[in-house]
Amino acid sequence: MPRKICVVVASRANYARVKTLLKAIQEHPELELQVVAGASLVLERFGNAVDVMSMDGFEPDATIRFIIEGETPVTMAKSTGLALLELPTVFELLKPDVVVTVADRFETIATAIAAAYMNIPVAHTQGGEVSGSIDESVRHAVTKLAHLHFPATELSAQRVISMGEDPATVFNLGCPSIDLVAATDLGLRQDTLSHFGGAGAEIDPGRPFVLMMQHPVTTEYGQGLDQINATIRALTAIGLQALVFWPNVDAGSEQVAKGLRLFRETGESGGCHFFRNLPPEIFVKLMAHCACMVGNSSAALREGAYLGTPAVTVGTRQRNRERAANVVDAGHDAKAIAAAIQGQIEHGRYERSTLFGDGRAGERIAETLAVERPSIQKKLHPGSLAVELAPF
Amino acid sequence: MPRKICVVVASRANYARVKTLLKAIQEHPELELQVVAGASLVLERFGNAVDVMSMDGFEPDATIRFIIEGETPVTMAKSTGLALLELPTVFELLKPDVVVTVADRFETIATAIAAAYMNIPVAHTQGGEVSGSIDESVRHAVTKLAHLHFPATELSAQRVISMGEDPATVFNLGCPSIDLVAATDLGLRQDTLSHFGGAGAEIDPGRPFVLMMQHPVTTEYGQGLDQINATIRALTAIGLQALVFWPNVDAGSEQVAKGLRLFRETGESGGCHFFRNLPPEIFVKLMAHCACMVGNSSAALREGAYLGTPAVTVGTRQRNRERAANVVDAGHDAKAIAAAIQGQIEHGRYERSTLFGDGRAGERIAETLAVERPSIQKKLHPGSLAVELAPF
Amino acid sequence: MPRKICVVVASRANYARVKTLLKAIQEHPELELQVVAGASLVLERFGNAVDVMSMDGFEPDATIRFIIEGETPVTMAKSTGLALLELPTVFELLKPDVVVTVADRFETIATAIAAAYMNIPVAHTQGGEVSGSIDESVRHAVTKLAHLHFPATELSAQRVISMGEDPATVFNLGCPSIDLVAATDLGLRQDTLSHFGGAGAEIDPGRPFVLMMQHPVTTEYGQGLDQINATIRALTAIGLQALVFWPNVDAGSEQVAKGLRLFRETGESGGCHFFRNLPPEIFVKLMAHCACMVGNSSAALREGAYLGTPAVTVGTRQRNRERAANVVDAGHDAKAIAAAIQGQIEHGRYERSTLFGDGRAGERIAETLAVERPSIQKKLHPGSLAVELAPF
Amino acid sequence: MPRKICVVVASRANYARVKTLLKAIQEHPELELQVVAGASLVLERFGNAVDVMSMDGFEPDATIRFIIEGETPVTMAKSTGLALLELPTVFELLKPDVVVTVADRFETIATAIAAAYMNIPVAHTQGGEVSGSIDESVRHAVTKLAHLHFPATELSAQRVISMGEDPATVFNLGCPSIDLVAATDLGLRQDTLSHFGGAGAEIDPGRPFVLMMQHPVTTEYGQGLDQINATIRALTAIGLQALVFWPNVDAGSEQVAKGLRLFRETGESGGCHFFRNLPPEIFVKLMAHCACMVGNSSAALREGAYLGTPAVTVGTRQRNRERAANVVDAGHDAKAIAAAIQGQIEHGRYERSTLFGDGRAGERIAETLAVERPSIQKKLHPGSLAVELAPF
Repeated sequence: MPRKICVVVASRANYARVKTLLKAIQEHPELELQVVAGASLVLERFGNAVDVMSMDGFEPDATIRFIIEGETPVTMAKSTGLALLELPTVFELLKPDVVVTVADRFETIATAIAAAYMNIPVAHTQGGEVSGSIDESVRHAVTKLAHLHFPATELSAQRVISMGEDPATVFNLGCPSIDLVAATDLGLRQDTLSHFGGAGAEIDPGRPFVLMMQHPVTTEYGQGLDQINATIRALTAIGLQALVFWPNVDAGSEQVAKGLRLFRETGESGGCHFFRNLPPEIFVKLMAHCACMVGNSSAALREGAYLGTPAVTVGTRQRNRERAANVVDAGHDAKAIAAAIQGQIEHGRYERSTLFGDGRAGERIAETLAVERPSIQKKLHPGSLAVELAPF
Repeated sequence: MPRKICVVVASRANYARVKTLLKAIQEHPELELQVVAGASLVLERFGNAVDVMSMDGFEPDATIRFIIEGETPVTMAKSTGLALLELPTVFELLKPDVVVTVADRFETIATAIAAAYMNIPVAHTQGGEVSGSIDESVRHAVTKLAHLHFPATELSAQRVISMGEDPATVFNLGCPSIDLVAATDLGLRQDTLSHFGGAGAEIDPGRPFVLMMQHPVTTEYGQGLDQINATIRALTAIGLQALVFWPNVDAGSEQVAKGLRLFRETGESGGCHFFRNLPPEIFVKLMAHCACMVGNSSAALREGAYLGTPAVTVGTRQRNRERAANVVDAGHDAKAIAAAIQGQIEHGRYERSTLFGDGRAGERIAETLAVERPSIQKKLHPGSLAVELAPF
Repeated sequence: MPRKICVVVASRANYARVKTLLKAIQEHPELELQVVAGASLVLERFGNAVDVMSMDGFEPDATIRFIIEGETPVTMAKSTGLALLELPTVFELLKPDVVVTVADRFETIATAIAAAYMNIPVAHTQGGEVSGSIDESVRHAVTKLAHLHFPATELSAQRVISMGEDPATVFNLGCPSIDLVAATDLGLRQDTLSHFGGAGAEIDPGRPFVLMMQHPVTTEYGQGLDQINATIRALTAIGLQALVFWPNVDAGSEQVAKGLRLFRETGESGGCHFFRNLPPEIFVKLMAHCACMVGNSSAALREGAYLGTPAVTVGTRQRNRERAANVVDAGHDAKAIAAAIQGQIEHGRYERSTLFGDGRAGERIAETLAVERPSIQKKLHPGSLAVELAPF
Repeated sequence: MPRKICVVVASRANYARVKTLLKAIQEHPELELQVVAGASLVLERFGNAVDVMSMDGFEPDATIRFIIEGETPVTMAKSTGLALLELPTVFELLKPDVVVTVADRFETIATAIAAAYMNIPVAHTQGGEVSGSIDESVRHAVTKLAHLHFPATELSAQRVISMGEDPATVFNLGCPSIDLVAATDLGLRQDTLSHFGGAGAEIDPGRPFVLMMQHPVTTEYGQGLDQINATIRALTAIGLQALVFWPNVDAGSEQVAKGLRLFRETGESGGCHFFRNLPPEIFVKLMAHCACMVGNSSAALREGAYLGTPAVTVGTRQRNRERAANVVDAGHDAKAIAAAIQGQIEHGRYERSTLFGDGRAGERIAETLAVERPSIQKKLHPGSLAVELAPF
């Protein structure tokens, strides 16, 4: 009987980061894929990315809705709670042998807790990375709950081990998000975007354009409107056409969305087109062709490294995250952001970096899931820790 | 304005482990104590320990109920979820400056997640210890969410740092549970127990008696009935009078309770008296006078070290936990357990060990809470990790 | 394709009241039975009646746990909320054509709301009855949410219609609980009870015995301990052997349970045997043979009518409920209760009454479920109302 | 000590319907007002109407968020559940003497259930009305849970009594929504709308305009996109400038919103301005001046009666609801809707009708809340029912 591998996919960003893994599990003779769709992935307001996923051949085995509207710190904590009421029901039904949880979001930790309490081994991708926002803490907490680790870089793998994980459970196989980039035809036609709706000005991909995606920073809750406004002013100053994405569902999202809405409604967003969601491959094409990417999405660092996308990362959300040469930092200051964008546009594209993988992570992870049998009872691994510890 | 320190107390065991800290916070001129009572602490079925706490002068500022009945792995995960729906409401209302979360249970991680997402600094006691059960994973995950650490031993403190926490946030000040032991008049009168109800035979504290407290092991769910039965048979074989405690609310609790219930109902429990709950000080007196303690409570290792209580720890629940000389391990085998109990009774009491503290932890922790101002944005501390890591 | 009829069974009492309906649905060629087990039915503490149900051939298609421990008015409301988070998941999965909800409890209204919002027709049994407690309000509220009504008596049917329900949707076919009574071999052997555990004195069914079952009254929350104590004192005064049942999970249950626990622990319950749960047929046998039934269970009125069981109903919980000659009321006064019990014992058994049905309700309801196709859009039925109403 | 009256306000529509009641309670010497803000009232996406309410002097005593995103039948049922987890906490904190619940929505029944289980008397406005959608059932179910009834018309009052409510608890005092209309200065200046944002074309209030507000019909879930598209086509055919409102949060809302979004994004909405929310008084001004109102909002029937607003009501959502002469029905057919709008425009404004009140309901209801003391134990009122019922 094949091992049942249940992957919880909970946002458009999540999906891009496990798509090739889903495929590899689906095709592996000893594995059976179970997909749980949840959170913003299944919301019309966020572009209903679940439809894209289904069309790609990954029909969800279960769909759960656990986003409590409001996007405040309180609703973020409570949405985690609601996810913890929903996920056990799904796991009880699907009886997976392993649950895969992605990255560092509230559904990530809810998935890890639900599975761990139910004695189902947890596999975690993207452990060991550092960043800002609450994601930093959540990512490492999930590492401590996970039984198998698939960090995306060598440094991340070493951090995971250093935190006390057994090296035998840590596998640096690269990030599946890079697989998707590597497999994508990067051509961008004049009409590529016309299929995907959105609102605002039409963008001519033949001319330079900026890609903007900025999320709230939970640990700086209340500053989201100011933060997006600084970036908007920089964008306006640059004067290029731009593709602008709505933010994710983190606490503070409504403030960022409000900034974008006012930008639209007051009519200054003349050269901008607004998207809720795009299929991952289309987003990759845009990253491959944009003059510059701006905001605080980790895509700029991750996929951007492989694509050599000139990027300006604002604020603290990606602070300290490993990156290649393509990223420049800026504070929440319109002038500084505009100057940084200008500099990146002048520099042009960067060399490819394989820091986050070479394009074959999905199949390697699937293969590892097929053979590893971690103990459900975790133990702090004494040999991994820095200090000289008494035997225990 | 004093700093508001909110302590979430969620079980009879929890309470004993923070009681002196509550007192020290209450008496500190720069601190204001907020107490949240929840989980089994507020349930009649578990002895309604909240009444004991209130009589001690710690009236709860909020009482929450989030235990979903059933005590299966599913309800344990879902109770965590329900706690995450309840706690943010309370924190929003009480607006604490710091939240204190104790040890390693599902309410512990729910508290840590709720506070962390709400940008309230989390202080954690008992981090860095190792054990069995899901508690092991949860304890370390909470460490990764916490902003201030109060581990109970030097080794635990070093482990917390080794996991990547900033040493400036880690304080080895001992465990408040030892304070309580140190401050307790250990005298046990003939009528001490008669005030506290319970059921079954009357116990004569003047004659040798066994103290038995055994909880389910979540990672061995389904084996609880067999596990308690082995201990029951050992107890019967020893033939001494015994004080037997009902188990906590972890997954598998109903199975352990069933074993105890059958033990009672079939009439073989002749020399046993059954308690749901006792005030911490009374429990300490019993630990100070019993011929042997048996089961898998961490009290045998922690308070037992200071009291020199001869103890037999069965199964994996306390596996690898730091301990003094007073503890002997046994598997879930009636004969082995009986032999170990016999050996401990013959040995008699052990020397005092201050491994877990010297009796002044509460006031030291309160003082630290009054002065420390941790950053809400956590960062993996590079200097703490074992490997040579690139600067980040 | 057979119509899928989903019955939510949520307590030991519920089960007795739909058992023959489950059977009739299961055997009907055009129907497919779906059983959802929840609430106290699946709790060890309440005797895990789900096992009895499974052994009877009704394996649950889904098991849900939504009782939040505490049994206060707050947890009762919140348990309703938790049921409303769980049931939609189950209905989405099972895709029933009709959902059957029983009587008047919090899971009853949660079931009705979940199905009604999901556009699944709701069939309701026991509508139109009057009683005390919050059950009275909940029962009529469920009537207003239900699409098919199966009241148990002619008077109840008329009340349902009078409340504005379309007479074409109201079917007075009797109560399935009477079917079960009618089909039960009423013989009670010396050893019948010995298979079912419980605790306390052994009962000799050859000698007169009392059957006691008393639940909390939610609208009189806080008086439960006094109320049970009055009945206990009456029982003690009578001096007969007695079978005593633990209360249900309504708000105040812990107070009633506490009264019973003290009764046991103080040793005055000498002639009593305590049960958590019995199979419905065994309970019926006991009702057929007891000298008197005392408490506030509706079984005394319902099954008692058919069996002619002499019964004393205390307090307001059954106030105003339709009844046959076998029931005498008493207030919460030990002397009055004792006198009433004495009177009933002297009177002896009553004539059979078919007020609540003649024993064929289950099959008639199943047949009706197979043929009726109610509109999902309900409308207040103008012809049913008392006043002369403008056409609408 | 004043009686604490807690009003749960959960949407922009809700607020308009209790605003004068809030004022009257606030000003009553024997009453103390408590306001709970929840659901769409507190969501940015729905215009954050809570800010309007706060500026009017009704600062919420508690704010709760319980909308689970998705707006499917499943999330609607689950949001009811989440409300039932949140409201008891609030009621436990605020300890109201009476809870007021408005109309017929899922938060309405959650409020009624929470209060009823907690033995807090429930006062209900707008009982006894008939309509389509699940609201019809919910409204009557809430009547059966409520202790005091404030229906808006004489016919509604008679229906409430006919359903078995005690006439002594039913008060026909009119609808507070009419008070607000009666007190509003109906003048509409050229710049009135310019303060309220929104998106799309600027509307000239000096020229004829249409007011469009269409919500999903839960019992016709899945047809929302077609239904809105029919109305959109009618609007386009009429060719007048129009003010278009986004739908409420009922199941199917995303489909209706999608229709509006496509309408905007495809650029055919040239003469339309889109609003999320407006203060009630501004909406009233618009109703007083529009050439025609179209959609399925009950405002067309209720406030529209008093204002004489020509209105076209589409589909079943208001089917059978009491109305004055100003309303014409149409099916979901673009031509029929357009013809009906054309007819209404030609007719022009209607005579005032005081069917739903004369403008003094708020103060009368407040006065009644100050003096009535309903029994918490409800009883079906025998004298109210149509049939000759045995005394009980």
